[in-house]
Amino acid sequence: MVRYGSVETGGTKFVLAIGDENFKIIKKLQIPTTTPDETIEGVIRFFKENPIDSLGIGSFGPIDINLNSSTYGYITTTPKAGWAQVNLLSRVKEVLNVPVAFTTDVNAAAYGEMIATGKQSLVYFTIGTGIGGGAVQDGKFVGGISHSEMGHTFVKRHPDDLDFTGICPFHGDCLEGLAAGPSIEARTGIRGEDLPYESPVWDIIAYYIAQMAVNTTLNFAPEKIVFGGGVMAQSHMMIRVQEQFLKLLNDYVQIPGLIDEYLVTPSIENNGSATIGGFAMAKELIKNSYN
Amino acid sequence: MVRYGSVETGGTKFVLAIGDENFKIIKKLQIPTTTPDETIEGVIRFFKENPIDSLGIGSFGPIDINLNSSTYGYITTTPKAGWAQVNLLSRVKEVLNVPVAFTTDVNAAAYGEMIATGKQSLVYFTIGTGIGGGAVQDGKFVGGISHSEMGHTFVKRHPDDLDFTGICPFHGDCLEGLAAGPSIEARTGIRGEDLPYESPVWDIIAYYIAQMAVNTTLNFAPEKIVFGGGVMAQSHMMIRVQEQFLKLLNDYVQIPGLIDEYLVTPSIENNGSATIGGFAMAKELIKNSYN
Repeated sequence: MVRYGSVETGGTKFVLAIGDENFKIIKKLQIPTTTPDETIEGVIRFFKENPIDSLGIGSFGPIDINLNSSTYGYITTTPKAGWAQVNLLSRVKEVLNVPVAFTTDVNAAAYGEMIATGKQSLVYFTIGTGIGGGAVQDGKFVGGISHSEMGHTFVKRHPDDLDFTGICPFHGDCLEGLAAGPSIEARTGIRGEDLPYESPVWDIIAYYIAQMAVNTTLNFAPEKIVFGGGVMAQSHMMIRVQEQFLKLLNDYVQIPGLIDEYLVTPSIENNGSATIGGFAMAKELIKNSYN
Repeated sequence: MVRYGSVETGGTKFVLAIGDENFKIIKKLQIPTTTPDETIEGVIRFFKENPIDSLGIGSFGPIDINLNSSTYGYITTTPKAGWAQVNLLSRVKEVLNVPVAFTTDVNAAAYGEMIATGKQSLVYFTIGTGIGGGAVQDGKFVGGISHSEMGHTFVKRHPDDLDFTGICPFHGDCLEGLAAGPSIEARTGIRGEDLPYESPVWDIIAYYIAQMAVNTTLNFAPEKIVFGGGVMAQSHMMIRVQEQFLKLLNDYVQIPGLIDEYLVTPSIENNGSATIGGFAMAKELIKNSYN
């Protein structure tokens, strides 16, 4: 009876899960992200108590996913205190002694949504504290020498937002600087969850997200773009983004099917996309090892 | 003795070529793009006189590259008079009766540069009358249900260029609307080739191209970004783009090696990237047919 493991690492918590051959979750545990030693110990303890055949890790980043690199499997230059240059992959793999797949949290989520929707070419964005994006094409991750960092791309400024300098410490007004959750409070003094839906700031945020969707459509020609994270979980946001997307794209290329089926929230509920993606990556590893 | 054929279709001319097993050009002919009937007849005549084993076509677009589509191999909604819905691939293939690969002109150019540089993950842009981009990763084209249309993505506006509305008939101020060659004349009344290099417009154009390069770096993480076309052939432009690229990226991710080796003009001279790419695509077809 095969058992797949999944780890989604985040700035505040790690989500650990065991799945069966159909990716049904058998056991799940969230542990807080504290020090690397303590947190990785928690990961190892969970999977020692619940043995698995292989494991998929989706991690916050930036991470090193270059198989030829001496720091493959590391969390690299993260600003998160204590977590820079942590050898996450090897420390888990050496103790558990099973095959381990390693990618970004958003790539893992894209992989999970690919499995859930059957769309082999799909892009997943999370828009919350930060913005991240991951793309799959024909069941493989897009990314040459490293993983995508789509959240830091540039888009054009909304005419009513030109005075806002953006909050990205690297780029100021890149996408993350303009449209991540904290940008709402930076503009208005009000946290996103408390900002009335009538506020014009929502349309400004939607304008940036819609451009991200247009650029993604033109760069990758995916079958589906999925939006996770707190900002797009606001019930009024998807329709704003869809409307502005259609206006901006202006029928230049055809999207596959209806807009409601193209720009969507996750098929997998409760932020579970990366967990299912982790199982699927774990399964793929075992499949490959028999080839 | 194997012979590969290559066709690069453009708005003003078709470039036809025969190559040997090492992609050395044995014969080359340029014919003007007139009507589809006449031009396709010219293609067929050339390859009847110079028989080939397989053919690679890189075409202006938009084109249909979806193998499951009933209009696979068509030039689809092009504004070029007479060329919309032309079944280019089948009309050539049926007469020549050899395997034919079909993609965009910029994808073919990316493929050629991949062969010439040995970089399996590479993005090629042409910046001339229009802007187009094509990406390869692990030797395959990036693109889900269709080909990339990177030239029509959005970037942020230069502060000294806010009054310019852009010249793209679909999007106004998308990249093509802001940075393609004709945008120079639209701003200044002077054609690009006659504009003094001291003009501040060059730095504005470079700012947009640099953002395109940053976004490409963050989306695809390629090993190399290659710029063809008339605008970047201006000797002073590459250094402007490189400088602004480094400023905008702000060390957020590492580029592979030196900037001079990362943002480059084509390795293949005389606009020949797509021709070599066509040969390589043609070779790949035969290789695959023996599998």
